Amino acid sequence: MSSSDIFIGEIIGTAVLILLGGGVVAAVVLKRSKAQNAGWLAITFGWGFAVMIAVYMTGTLSGAHLNPAVTVGIAVKDGDWSNVPVYLAGQMLGAMIGAALVWIAYYGQFQAHLTDPEIIAAPPHEEGLVSEAAAPKAGPVLGVFSTGPEVRVVWQNLATEIIGTTVLVLAVLTQGLNDSGNGLGVIGALIVALTVVGIGLSLGGPTGYAINPARDLGPRIVHALLPLPNKGGSDWGYAWIPVVGPLIGGALAAGIYNLAFA
Amino acid sequence: MSSSDIFIGEIIGTAVLILLGGGVVAAVVLKRSKAQNAGWLAITFGWGFAVMIAVYMTGTLSGAHLNPAVTVGIAVKDGDWSNVPVYLAGQMLGAMIGAALVWIAYYGQFQAHLTDPEIIAAPPHEEGLVSEAAAPKAGPVLGVFSTGPEVRVVWQNLATEIIGTTVLVLAVLTQGLNDSGNGLGVIGALIVALTVVGIGLSLGGPTGYAINPARDLGPRIVHALLPLPNKGGSDWGYAWIPVVGPLIGGALAAGIYNLAFA
Amino acid sequence: MSSSDIFIGEIIGTAVLILLGGGVVAAVVLKRSKAQNAGWLAITFGWGFAVMIAVYMTGTLSGAHLNPAVTVGIAVKDGDWSNVPVYLAGQMLGAMIGAALVWIAYYGQFQAHLTDPEIIAAPPHEEGLVSEAAAPKAGPVLGVFSTGPEVRVVWQNLATEIIGTTVLVLAVLTQGLNDSGNGLGVIGALIVALTVVGIGLSLGGPTGYAINPARDLGPRIVHALLPLPNKGGSDWGYAWIPVVGPLIGGALAAGIYNLAFA
Amino acid sequence: MSSSDIFIGEIIGTAVLILLGGGVVAAVVLKRSKAQNAGWLAITFGWGFAVMIAVYMTGTLSGAHLNPAVTVGIAVKDGDWSNVPVYLAGQMLGAMIGAALVWIAYYGQFQAHLTDPEIIAAPPHEEGLVSEAAAPKAGPVLGVFSTGPEVRVVWQNLATEIIGTTVLVLAVLTQGLNDSGNGLGVIGALIVALTVVGIGLSLGGPTGYAINPARDLGPRIVHALLPLPNKGGSDWGYAWIPVVGPLIGGALAAGIYNLAFA
Repeated sequence: MSSSDIFIGEIIGTAVLILLGGGVVAAVVLKRSKAQNAGWLAITFGWGFAVMIAVYMTGTLSGAHLNPAVTVGIAVKDGDWSNVPVYLAGQMLGAMIGAALVWIAYYGQFQAHLTDPEIIAAPPHEEGLVSEAAAPKAGPVLGVFSTGPEVRVVWQNLATEIIGTTVLVLAVLTQGLNDSGNGLGVIGALIVALTVVGIGLSLGGPTGYAINPARDLGPRIVHALLPLPNKGGSDWGYAWIPVVGPLIGGALAAGIYNLAFA
Repeated sequence: MSSSDIFIGEIIGTAVLILLGGGVVAAVVLKRSKAQNAGWLAITFGWGFAVMIAVYMTGTLSGAHLNPAVTVGIAVKDGDWSNVPVYLAGQMLGAMIGAALVWIAYYGQFQAHLTDPEIIAAPPHEEGLVSEAAAPKAGPVLGVFSTGPEVRVVWQNLATEIIGTTVLVLAVLTQGLNDSGNGLGVIGALIVALTVVGIGLSLGGPTGYAINPARDLGPRIVHALLPLPNKGGSDWGYAWIPVVGPLIGGALAAGIYNLAFA
Repeated sequence: MSSSDIFIGEIIGTAVLILLGGGVVAAVVLKRSKAQNAGWLAITFGWGFAVMIAVYMTGTLSGAHLNPAVTVGIAVKDGDWSNVPVYLAGQMLGAMIGAALVWIAYYGQFQAHLTDPEIIAAPPHEEGLVSEAAAPKAGPVLGVFSTGPEVRVVWQNLATEIIGTTVLVLAVLTQGLNDSGNGLGVIGALIVALTVVGIGLSLGGPTGYAINPARDLGPRIVHALLPLPNKGGSDWGYAWIPVVGPLIGGALAAGIYNLAFA
Repeated sequence: MSSSDIFIGEIIGTAVLILLGGGVVAAVVLKRSKAQNAGWLAITFGWGFAVMIAVYMTGTLSGAHLNPAVTVGIAVKDGDWSNVPVYLAGQMLGAMIGAALVWIAYYGQFQAHLTDPEIIAAPPHEEGLVSEAAAPKAGPVLGVFSTGPEVRVVWQNLATEIIGTTVLVLAVLTQGLNDSGNGLGVIGALIVALTVVGIGLSLGGPTGYAINPARDLGPRIVHALLPLPNKGGSDWGYAWIPVVGPLIGGALAAGIYNLAFA
């Protein structure tokens, strides 16, 4: 794969991933959406199919990493870091484009939600085991863009992201053992998608399963930049956890792979 | 493929698509249905499996476009418009047959719903950001037939349909890169189906994701023709958006494909 | 396939189908079940996976018809009725065994449900468009065994079963066009399963989608025979519709297949 | 497969299975989880995808039994018990590791749940058909670790576990008839996963479908050992049923296989 194919593939793939992934959260949480209150199953399946569509679309172009944790995991496994910068650049750029597209697709819903007097007046989402001073600064629609914890315990939040990403990247790495060795095929995209649904259902409860630094950081930057009325803070104090946790998880998965499966 | 196979395949396929797609909306919204209030996940999965069944059934007969946006996207990509008229004719005829079959299958449910005093007396579905004068004229069961916006903002409604259809048609076009080159196979039908579920979950909130001109216009004509009691208006003022938006999206997807993937 | 393999395969397969299909209804409707009120999506996916498991298990043994409408459809298509009696006998016997196994697996739930004073005292399930004299005689757990209409309109109930079964059998018959010609393979079982989920979601609302004479009649006989307390009537006046409708649908699908696809 | 590959594969696979399976129950039942009250469908799909991920990951390493009932079923079918001890040891160890990881991933949720005054003061979960003296001693979060009956009738609870496991193991054994004979491939993992979803939906209502002795006993031991506040009893009086029932079911499936399918 050429660098330009990787760059373009990762931009398109990550943009589609975040457009559809952020889109399903917008669909379920924003007012004036037909899917409002469709629930956690809708969110987890929506994110999973977002992965499926994006991987299926760009697998032959860039290998469809779409996630710095996958890129780092493959680099650690193979000991080859030469393409890592172009993958990461494409992923971050794609994630920001995707988040902006969510805003366009749900423009009227964002407006209706953020100008609703009840939503403006509501106190910030209550969290457990947190002192008053450390109360989160997350705004009312930040969840459409980025993740946040239900209970703010740094070591646990970090551990949950590490565990979830380790499962994801180990599943991606062991896939080569099942496929005929020709990379992410048609079935591979479906298996990875349902793996993401499974991780969301099983490990998404505490932190909202970023398991992907670009998926969290790119849209958080877009949230900070967009001219949304009454949007509130972007919770930058939490922003390092869904970046560092997944990167550790990706490297850990590669280590387990090289020890037990190679 | 012969013209008559294309015509018959598109009629059967689009009729099955709309029978099952309109059917799941009838099942979830009409009174006296076992599935009443089964929710947004039921609707999105129902539409997805409708696509899967119809594509699987007619893939070898007509190629299973079942959607003018797919037909236009393939024509733009290949620069070959020779079969477009027969595809479109089959799709429109099939969609109208399918909508009539929904009426037969749910006859008693339509009767029970449209003769219910509470439903007749209810004001039209409230929409956001719309002036009183522009309030929608959609009748109480139009949603079983055609789509409509939750917030009536023309540029956004059009943009959402363009974005959703671009994702759909780009996924269909890139599929050839994953398959062994023999068109829509068994797995392809499943992947396309789950792609439609994903687009529904992620981008269906604002407008109900027509993403297919025949899916929206054919049933709207049938809604206008059927002798349903108290059926209300067919919202013709909105009808151009789910036709024009998807056609733009299909052409846009073909352009992206030819630039980035070909 | 030998007659004894067909007979044994259809018994095992239809027993598993009804055990799991009846089981999911018991799980969702009976008191003291962890799945009580899990909803229509749970029922439709449960029936679909019941088909998948049973087809996957017995496909190589008997061809996994598991449904007289499929057997009749294949016989009409091929003009070969020689194995029809042994298929039907295995299907009816298997369906009755499966219904009895549901009773064993949910014994305590049936007891808790049918000895609950509120459930005993409740009037029969209200139906639409039905005169007082024709009110249904269905007992409070008949739905675990057999189907019934929400609106009792004979021509519609029959039409809905015909339409649903036509879609099912046409999907089964056209599958050979997609597969490599070696019958119901691994993927085939999944596609048929999701087809049944789709038909349930889209066409199950009015009558509960029997779409299979053995699935309805076998368990209805078992309901009549089992020593369940306060079980109420078996609604024999309706019993012919989910037998005749699916048989017509199976034959109709074969006719469409021979006209348009062969 | 070498003994060390089997041992390591079963440890990793069963740990992932229980991490994700226990995780989805924690996600749905514990306070301060984003998935709280996501319902029975979320639990059954979560367990199914847990199976898919674990089988897919370790299929080439150990054959991915991950369940003593599967190991016993294959041993009875083949008459070869030589690897059974190493399979069982890996499965039990992996299940305990997985349960401990659930505790880490949901640490704050366990704390919030078990220090909630209302939850501490609530009487034990009410069961049907049970005398006061035999009332269950299950603590408020035992369900995250191990299964328990809704109606405590020993013969039924045992029968339900036998029936569910027989279906599971028979599906695993007959899979070789559909695959190309090369064991659990890419599609096989998905089919087994959806089989587990189906068994959960259809037969999980009465006892919570252990259908796997290691899945129930390993986490129950961990529940007894963990320093959870106010955790209550581990219900050891019930613990033999989800061990003995699945083992009988696995052997029974092998017997049916050898009689009808071999």
